[in-house]
Amino acid sequence: MMSASRADIAGRTATLLATMRAARPLVHNIANYVSMDVAANALLAIGASPAMVHAREEVAEFVGLSAALVVNIGTLSTPWIEAMIIAAEAAKGQGKPWVLDPVGAGATTLRNEAVKMLLTHRPSIIRGNASEIMAVAGGAGVTPKGVDSANTTQEALAFALSLAEHEDSIVVATGAVDIVTDGHRVVKLANGSPMMAKVTALGCALSAVTGAFAAAATDKFDAAVAAVAVYGIVGEIAAEQAKGPGSYRVAFLDGLESIGPKEIESRLRIVD
Amino acid sequence: MMSASRADIAGRTATLLATMRAARPLVHNIANYVSMDVAANALLAIGASPAMVHAREEVAEFVGLSAALVVNIGTLSTPWIEAMIIAAEAAKGQGKPWVLDPVGAGATTLRNEAVKMLLTHRPSIIRGNASEIMAVAGGAGVTPKGVDSANTTQEALAFALSLAEHEDSIVVATGAVDIVTDGHRVVKLANGSPMMAKVTALGCALSAVTGAFAAAATDKFDAAVAAVAVYGIVGEIAAEQAKGPGSYRVAFLDGLESIGPKEIESRLRIVD
Amino acid sequence: MMSASRADIAGRTATLLATMRAARPLVHNIANYVSMDVAANALLAIGASPAMVHAREEVAEFVGLSAALVVNIGTLSTPWIEAMIIAAEAAKGQGKPWVLDPVGAGATTLRNEAVKMLLTHRPSIIRGNASEIMAVAGGAGVTPKGVDSANTTQEALAFALSLAEHEDSIVVATGAVDIVTDGHRVVKLANGSPMMAKVTALGCALSAVTGAFAAAATDKFDAAVAAVAVYGIVGEIAAEQAKGPGSYRVAFLDGLESIGPKEIESRLRIVD
Repeated sequence: MMSASRADIAGRTATLLATMRAARPLVHNIANYVSMDVAANALLAIGASPAMVHAREEVAEFVGLSAALVVNIGTLSTPWIEAMIIAAEAAKGQGKPWVLDPVGAGATTLRNEAVKMLLTHRPSIIRGNASEIMAVAGGAGVTPKGVDSANTTQEALAFALSLAEHEDSIVVATGAVDIVTDGHRVVKLANGSPMMAKVTALGCALSAVTGAFAAAATDKFDAAVAAVAVYGIVGEIAAEQAKGPGSYRVAFLDGLESIGPKEIESRLRIVD
Repeated sequence: MMSASRADIAGRTATLLATMRAARPLVHNIANYVSMDVAANALLAIGASPAMVHAREEVAEFVGLSAALVVNIGTLSTPWIEAMIIAAEAAKGQGKPWVLDPVGAGATTLRNEAVKMLLTHRPSIIRGNASEIMAVAGGAGVTPKGVDSANTTQEALAFALSLAEHEDSIVVATGAVDIVTDGHRVVKLANGSPMMAKVTALGCALSAVTGAFAAAATDKFDAAVAAVAVYGIVGEIAAEQAKGPGSYRVAFLDGLESIGPKEIESRLRIVD
Repeated sequence: MMSASRADIAGRTATLLATMRAARPLVHNIANYVSMDVAANALLAIGASPAMVHAREEVAEFVGLSAALVVNIGTLSTPWIEAMIIAAEAAKGQGKPWVLDPVGAGATTLRNEAVKMLLTHRPSIIRGNASEIMAVAGGAGVTPKGVDSANTTQEALAFALSLAEHEDSIVVATGAVDIVTDGHRVVKLANGSPMMAKVTALGCALSAVTGAFAAAATDKFDAAVAAVAVYGIVGEIAAEQAKGPGSYRVAFLDGLESIGPKEIESRLRIVD
C-alpha cells in the first residue's frame, strides 16, 4: 500500500519535473536579499526562468508576464510589504499560483502583520520550517530562533493540517521529515541532509523551486510534493559529494540540473 | 583579411587586459540585488576593484572617486532610479565612462521609463541581451520573457546599429554570438558557452567587467570588444571544467583571474 | 615570553570557538547587500545562526532575540542608517555586544556622518581595513580607494590605539598583519592569505563572525582575537586548496566548518 503510493509519487514527480523543464516557467520572486542569488541559481539549475522584481510600480504588471509568484518575507521593510500585497492580489486576480515563504514568522510584530495581510490573498502554497508554520498557524507562544527552526515538523503537523484547511492552501513544513498537506491528504518525505541547514537560504530557494512546479501542475498538492521530493533527493546526493558547506552549495546546484527520473525512482523516501 | 582583424583584436584585447589589471580601476556599480555578489567577485577576479554604492546622497560624490560607473536596472525601485540618474549625470559631467545594463527592458512601463531617462545622459556603452537591446531601441512589440532573451543577437543587429548611432554609444548585444557596434564598426564574437545562461547574473557581471575595461581604454569600442572577448573565452574554458551550474560559477571566477594573452590568442573566435 | 603568549592565545581561541559553537548564537546582521550571502554562509559554517533584519519597525525587537548585533555600512541609504541607529541603541540598552564595520568610511560625507552617529552608541568592536580605521579615527586626508585598503595596518596602529581608547571599544584593523587592540593591549596576527582580498565581502563576513565570538566571550578583546585568528588560519588553509577566487570561496567556507583546535595550535602566527 505504502510502496504503491511511493511509486505513484515518484512517477508523478518525474513527470512533473519533465513538464516543468519543458515549459521553463518564468517565476516572479519577491525574494529576500540573502536568498536572491541562490534562489535564482536554483531556479536556473532546475530548469526554470527566474526574475526578481519588487517595485510597487511594476509588480502587478510583472505578475502578468509570469507563470508563478513567490513571496518571501525574509528581509522585510514597509515598501516591500506593500509590493508583496499588490503582487499577491494580482496573482490571485489573474489565477496565477503563488507561494508564500513566511521567513521568521512569529519573531516580530512586523512579520506577523505582514503574514496576516498576505494570507488574505490566499497563497496556493505556504512553505516554511516547523516553527514558521506553527507561528503562521497562530501557535501561540512560539518564538522561532531567528530563521532557524526550533521545532520539528512532527510537532508542526497539527498546525499544518489546520492551516491548510483554514486557508485552502497547500502547506509545506520542511525539516528532517518534510510534510506536505492540503488539510486532508498528507505526504511525509524523508530525503535531504543536515547539510542543507548549513547553507543559507536553501529553504527560500525551495520555495522558489516550488513556484516553478506550481506553474507546471494542475494539482498544487502534487506540485508541492514534487518540489520537496526533488529538492530533498538532490540534498542527499550533494551531501555524498561535498566536503563542507561551501562545496555543498556547489554540489547542490549541480545536482538540481542533473537530477532525473532515475534518482527520483531509486531514492525517494516516503514515511508514515 | 578577417584573420588579420582577428589577430588585431586578440592583440588589443590582451594589451587592454594588462593595462586594466595594472590600473586596477575602481568601478562604481549601482547593481541589482541578485548580481551584486557575482559582479563584485567577477571584478575582483579579473583584476579590478568593485564598489556598490546606491544612496542618492552619495552617488555623485562616489562617481568622483571612481574610474567608471555601471548602472544595472535589474531590481528597480523609485529611489534607486533617482540615484541612477544622479550618478549617470555625474559620470557624464565628470567625463567618466559609464555602462548601462537595461535588464528586463521592454517588460514593464517602469523599466522603459527608467531607460528613457538614463539614455538622456548618454551611456558610453549599453550592454544587454538581444531582446533588451531591441526593446531599448524601441523595437515595438518586443516583450522579453523576464530577464532571459527570447531573440537572437542576429535579429537584434539592426536595432543595435541604429541605437548605437542614435545615442552615440557603443552597443553590446550578447548571446550565442556577441555583437559589439558603435553604429559603424561591428565585431561579432562567438566564444562563450550555453552554461553562461545557467548561472544567474553573469550578464550583469559582464556589464561590470565592461566598466573596468572602459576605465582603461581610450576607445570604448575596443574596451567593449575586449571585455566580451575575455568573458566569452573564460566562459568556454569554465565549461570544459564544470559538472553543472554550481561548479561552473566557481570555474568561471577562477578563469577570470587566470586568463592571459595565451588563451586570448588561441581561443578568440571572430565571425562574419 | 612571546611563545607563551602565543600558546595562551591559541588555547583561548580554541576554547572560545568550542563555546561559541555549543551556544550557536543568533547573530543579527544589518549587513550590506553584497555581503549578506557570504556573511550568512560564514556564520552558518563556523557554527552560529545568522539573521539579516533591517526594517526600522522591527530591528529593536529583533535585537532582543539575538545574542549579538553586527552593523555594516557597505551599501548605505537613509532608511538603513535610521535602522542601524535604532538597533545599535537597542543593543547598548540591552547590554548586547555589537560590532561596527565601517565599510568605505572616509569615502563620502554620508558614510562619515553615519559612522559618527553610530559611534555615539559605543560599538563593542570596530572592524575595518587600515584605511577605514584611520578614517574612523579621524585621520584627516585619508581617502580610502573604494572599499579596498590603501594603507597598511602598521600605519593604522596609532589610529587604532587612540580610537579604541577614545571609544572604549575593541578595534580590529585587518590586512597582511591583523591588529586587535583595546587601547592598551595589542595583538598582531599574521595568518591569512592575499586571496582573501580576491573574494568580495570576506572582510564583512569576518565582522559577522566576530559578532558570533563576541556573543560567546566575556572579554570582547579575546573574542576579537579569536575571530581574527580562526578566520586567518582558515584563509591560509583555503589558499592551499584553491585554484582561483571562485574555488577559494568554496574552500574558505568548507574550512570555517572544519577548523578545530589542532589547526589553531599548529598554525596561529602572532607577531611583534
